Amino acid sequence: MTRRSDDLDELVRRVRAGDARAVARLISLVENDSCRLREIAIALAPFAGAAHVVGLTGAPGVGKSTLTGALIGLLRERDLRVGVLAVDPTSPLSGGALLGDRIRMEKHATDRGVFVRSLATRGQLGGLAAAVPQAVRVLDAAGCDVIIVETVGVGQAELEIVALADTAVPVLAPGLGDGVQAAKAGIAEIADVLVVNKSDRDGAAQVARDLRGAQALAAADESRWRAPIVPTTATTGAGVAALADAIGQHRAWLGSGDGLRQRRLARAASEIEAIALAQMRARLAAGATPAGLDAAARRVQAGDTDPYSAATALIDTAFGG
Amino acid sequence: MTRRSDDLDELVRRVRAGDARAVARLISLVENDSCRLREIAIALAPFAGAAHVVGLTGAPGVGKSTLTGALIGLLRERDLRVGVLAVDPTSPLSGGALLGDRIRMEKHATDRGVFVRSLATRGQLGGLAAAVPQAVRVLDAAGCDVIIVETVGVGQAELEIVALADTAVPVLAPGLGDGVQAAKAGIAEIADVLVVNKSDRDGAAQVARDLRGAQALAAADESRWRAPIVPTTATTGAGVAALADAIGQHRAWLGSGDGLRQRRLARAASEIEAIALAQMRARLAAGATPAGLDAAARRVQAGDTDPYSAATALIDTAFGG
Repeated sequence: MTRRSDDLDELVRRVRAGDARAVARLISLVENDSCRLREIAIALAPFAGAAHVVGLTGAPGVGKSTLTGALIGLLRERDLRVGVLAVDPTSPLSGGALLGDRIRMEKHATDRGVFVRSLATRGQLGGLAAAVPQAVRVLDAAGCDVIIVETVGVGQAELEIVALADTAVPVLAPGLGDGVQAAKAGIAEIADVLVVNKSDRDGAAQVARDLRGAQALAAADESRWRAPIVPTTATTGAGVAALADAIGQHRAWLGSGDGLRQRRLARAASEIEAIALAQMRARLAAGATPAGLDAAARRVQAGDTDPYSAATALIDTAFGG
Repeated sequence: MTRRSDDLDELVRRVRAGDARAVARLISLVENDSCRLREIAIALAPFAGAAHVVGLTGAPGVGKSTLTGALIGLLRERDLRVGVLAVDPTSPLSGGALLGDRIRMEKHATDRGVFVRSLATRGQLGGLAAAVPQAVRVLDAAGCDVIIVETVGVGQAELEIVALADTAVPVLAPGLGDGVQAAKAGIAEIADVLVVNKSDRDGAAQVARDLRGAQALAAADESRWRAPIVPTTATTGAGVAALADAIGQHRAWLGSGDGLRQRRLARAASEIEAIALAQMRARLAAGATPAGLDAAARRVQAGDTDPYSAATALIDTAFGG
């Protein structure tokens, strides 16, 4: 029933054989070739679902990149194949944590058990939310046991991506100021494992105490997993084994009940919604040509209409409503 | 023709009289009351368009908050009424620069010539892109001569918001790492005035040189404004008067030709598009109920369909396509 071109079948075959160049090529297709996303999803579906997806996020400066590198090393010692998907919001002003990451993780570049890919989408964040699960499927089909999805945790959208991993791991560090302080309740809410990196610095114990307080305020549902707080010093490797253990324990807990299935259903629902938004945006863009949008803007500027009515008219044009 | 409730007329009247509580109340309505956005836009339209909208952005740590505070003080000395709209992506992991900003700007809280409001939208970034121009209209109607729209410049969406101001002012500082380095071309592209803050620190001259290089690479269109690079040390106030002058000169240049009209047409077009996206998202949410989305996710998980086909089906349901 499904049209599927031969070269895609061949590419998927090479991905399943663990061919790093094929993995890179297929993730590029996910980023860029919106016409083939559906056939890629169909081709990968039979080979995905085995990997443990770990979402790692934190503000710039928490030492996320060093921590990811240390975690890769440790998981490799345990003979696990590791994929890293560095999700890059491609902002000119992002501070570039991910660029640094990629370079620092190069030491694993020659290890055939490690795939490190970045994922950037030129467009809207909705596009990113739709592209991440698809790129995860590529790494999954390539035989990764653990896939680390790394985002710079600054936007709501990036945080949502991490919350949809099997195991969500926010990373904090001392000395990051008032805002993180105020936000700890939200962090505690989405976390499956909490990391306080730079634990050798002043204030680390206070960060952990604050997180424990935020957890206590969150609903104390006895049946739920309670996120452990793991202190690490990524630069020396201290605590990284404990972190890997905590992540493994959360995975085991998920598998012991209905947790994993529930988490993945939520991820599928979120992916469908993100794809729907991207499809609608494309349809709007096709209907609202630059000329049409410009004309609408002129009418608003002239006071002939308001922006809300102009927007409704655009949608009616695009969807024939 | 337009239904408009009496209390909204009264609120707009008080906003125009410069009543800070009415400004706060109306901006809250913009954030929260999606049903009345259209009538608010219509009520404000006749009283908006005079203010000079300045977009200020930069990565966490560049000293944006101190700079904004210094700029407010200087503009007040020049007897200008100032509005500040601190756009907060409400991320739990944002590092909280804006929270700090708000507190530090409190020293202007009792000055009747200064309005400082934050704008957060619980939802998607599209919602923010639609809400900012509306909130700017409120401050504009309140008689502000200059409105500073301040974002933490980490996401693409936030950067786009700043690029749509009359005058876009990215702020950099030495010591922020590789990523900003790589991104200077993009920053130079959107900038009308470039600020290198913390100019007393090592590396500031290098940042300015890099920016000049990035500008040189950008198309050298003689008819275009060439963004000046202004070194500042916000903590001492050094360079802040020069920054205010540069912003004023850009405003004068815009007004001397067709620039201001073009810029504002682009802003109107962007607002219409953002509103259309928000409206479509709401319609999708109404059509794609949690139960419907859950059923679609189950079908994808069972392998009965793929996420792309499921998304198309959702849209068809929501839009009766």
